[in-house]
Amino acid sequence: MREALKFSGIEFSDSPEDLFCYGFDASRLKTTPGIVVWAKGVEDVASVMKIASEKGVPVVPRGAGTATTGASTPVEGGVVLSLEKMQRIIEIDEENMDVLVEPGVINGRLQRGLEVLDLFYPPDPASLEFCTIGGNVALNAGGPRGLKYGVTRDYVLELEAVTPEGTVIRAGARTLKRTVGYDLKDLLIGSEGTLAIITKIRLRVLPMPERRITLLTTFDSISRCGDFILSVLKAGILPSCMELMDRGAVEVVEEYRATGLPVAEASLLIELDGSNRTVIQDAERVAEVCRRCGGEVQVAEDHLSQEALWKARRSIAPALYRLGSEKINHDVVVPRRQIPTLFEFLRKVSGQQDVKVVAFGHAGDGNIHINILYHRELEQSARAVAKRLIEEVLRLEGTISGEHGVGLTKRQYIGLEISNREMDIMRGIKRLFDPKGILNPGKVFP
Amino acid sequence: MREALKFSGIEFSDSPEDLFCYGFDASRLKTTPGIVVWAKGVEDVASVMKIASEKGVPVVPRGAGTATTGASTPVEGGVVLSLEKMQRIIEIDEENMDVLVEPGVINGRLQRGLEVLDLFYPPDPASLEFCTIGGNVALNAGGPRGLKYGVTRDYVLELEAVTPEGTVIRAGARTLKRTVGYDLKDLLIGSEGTLAIITKIRLRVLPMPERRITLLTTFDSISRCGDFILSVLKAGILPSCMELMDRGAVEVVEEYRATGLPVAEASLLIELDGSNRTVIQDAERVAEVCRRCGGEVQVAEDHLSQEALWKARRSIAPALYRLGSEKINHDVVVPRRQIPTLFEFLRKVSGQQDVKVVAFGHAGDGNIHINILYHRELEQSARAVAKRLIEEVLRLEGTISGEHGVGLTKRQYIGLEISNREMDIMRGIKRLFDPKGILNPGKVFP
Repeated sequence: MREALKFSGIEFSDSPEDLFCYGFDASRLKTTPGIVVWAKGVEDVASVMKIASEKGVPVVPRGAGTATTGASTPVEGGVVLSLEKMQRIIEIDEENMDVLVEPGVINGRLQRGLEVLDLFYPPDPASLEFCTIGGNVALNAGGPRGLKYGVTRDYVLELEAVTPEGTVIRAGARTLKRTVGYDLKDLLIGSEGTLAIITKIRLRVLPMPERRITLLTTFDSISRCGDFILSVLKAGILPSCMELMDRGAVEVVEEYRATGLPVAEASLLIELDGSNRTVIQDAERVAEVCRRCGGEVQVAEDHLSQEALWKARRSIAPALYRLGSEKINHDVVVPRRQIPTLFEFLRKVSGQQDVKVVAFGHAGDGNIHINILYHRELEQSARAVAKRLIEEVLRLEGTISGEHGVGLTKRQYIGLEISNREMDIMRGIKRLFDPKGILNPGKVFP
Repeated sequence: MREALKFSGIEFSDSPEDLFCYGFDASRLKTTPGIVVWAKGVEDVASVMKIASEKGVPVVPRGAGTATTGASTPVEGGVVLSLEKMQRIIEIDEENMDVLVEPGVINGRLQRGLEVLDLFYPPDPASLEFCTIGGNVALNAGGPRGLKYGVTRDYVLELEAVTPEGTVIRAGARTLKRTVGYDLKDLLIGSEGTLAIITKIRLRVLPMPERRITLLTTFDSISRCGDFILSVLKAGILPSCMELMDRGAVEVVEEYRATGLPVAEASLLIELDGSNRTVIQDAERVAEVCRRCGGEVQVAEDHLSQEALWKARRSIAPALYRLGSEKINHDVVVPRRQIPTLFEFLRKVSGQQDVKVVAFGHAGDGNIHINILYHRELEQSARAVAKRLIEEVLRLEGTISGEHGVGLTKRQYIGLEISNREMDIMRGIKRLFDPKGILNPGKVFP
């Protein structure tokens, strides 16, 4: 591989420092790749794949490495193909309201680039200051705004990708509608870099909403909060976010970095956006529904007080390590009305055998991040809790992953959700794209 | 086949009347199937597929037969598997805002069933009083409301389907978000009944908007109307529909059934929906933008005057046969800002060699229905115009089908839009689901 790359002029390294730094991702699983390659464009990606395919060397594509389930963990001795230097925003078409980017563009940078043109790209994973659009597409990333605005899949119009043998393909179209052949675009989205390497992405964008308001609502029980969520939505109000924090989440944040959040059984951050008049009208209605459901409400109209609330929300993940050196993080989803049942289950298992469970997340769309915290010696108990949780979620007609994907850490559960025949079809699709099995091998499938 | 079905207790017929009636769909291509089978549930579908697979007999699934490109045209001597008797609305979950239906449920019936609960299923193909939800999923149907609300794909949460060898599979989940394995759900949507037979569909629904207003705007040129469309969207107003009719479309409607529509170069029907206050505010802003773009505006606030306008729009298709006994209908899509260029092209080719071209459709999302009308002796000229049109659409970064699919009539063009490698992958997917090639054979692929 090294020799072939030398003649290609493509940037690469096999220094121990680089092999170490690219040896893990946010899943904290560690391996040592054989070489790291930095592609500068689609031709580089195609060349690398041609060489790797010829030599039968495994290749793991990588954006910023923020994947939490090991989707970008390298194969021992294999190639890490970094796309972080493909970071051009190629075209912003204001009339057509679409944007063409390379996969290494950071989500937050794109957001700010669009903001000055009064345009808006909604998907906002918590890691938006680091994660790349290519990674967002590979994992079909979501974020708080998913409730109103959907996930990455809902914004991808068109993809350019390189197949494992090095052919450039196109999937989707620049248009908003299309029914021509099978939907290869949606097949690539969420495929965790196992089918093809995405090299260009055209995204649909929206006009920036005129106004945003954040409300903090608190309740003395999760079940009241659950009623409130359903009542707001049933009233025809669609907030851009409804972020739930349980008592454990608020307590740990306040210990970590006091933000003045009131400690309640259930706290729900609500963001409303839209035209000036609509937002104010909706905020009044939300406050009214909140009081009727027995909750308390606090409004943050200006940017600073809004930021204070969101800062608390974003501090949960780092704060969690106070509760245990180890963490299992499941981003399960349940049908909205099952949220109280899920939390009831969590309340029962939390604290058993010194394993703590803290839950927060996108309650509006039923996507809850459940964190099982423990000290190393309790690994077995923690794993047992995690398994019971997955079974409960499936019993509630939920799914094991809303936005993090399967990667390596959830392979053991996928068979609980997907039948053998469905898995056969998926394996067949994998073989179709990648007959030699060199692209991100070992991921997704058990 | 007949003998095996006899013992199964499944309803079937091979009477000449039934074979005639099920021998064609809205594409008007005619064949004579060998047998028509009416499934009553997923077990019937699985049994039929097991028998057909064993005997190697081709099966064409069929909803209401409203497909315009021949996706449900039977195979000569093969089985027509009608799903029209699987028409139960199984469950409406008001809290979770989803609905579970069988594939034979008529779109319009579902809409009305939801309306009484103040719920709303947006996709509204023009044939909504006849077409089935199963067919809508198979073709990824759109409709005027696609601009604001997207297409069928955007509402399907979960599918149950029967593979060609008779296994029941599930794709998607009841939840709003999911990244677990490859996206089989989106692969089945729009696959025109060539991969599996859809037997249950869970759809996401929305709260019914509080208010609707329809505006008719008219312009003395398509290019002014194009500017207007872009200006409205850029102003952050997202109408539920923006339906464009060119002069030819309005003239033919007025000759067919006078509705009092003013004859202008470009007429654009706009529907706004949302909360009471927002709709009125938006209507005022749209009217202002319209006048600034040199257009005239007329508002229909009450139900009756709204219906009059929409009646005109829906009369275009039947009225068209006044212009020629034969029709080629292309539902192309171009990026929004290319609409004026597309119409400029149409103006040039229309009238050449007695072939008339009338265009109307969903201008907001760039999806234009282009009708090439001719008398039988001019078939060659008409086909030449159709071919030039497809080439122009692809030159403008458009797509050959927005919502009708490829079926039989567009197979000749698919190779212009999709590369060989992409087609190979699609053919591989077809083989994976249907190794014997018995399910709706001959469709989509050239």
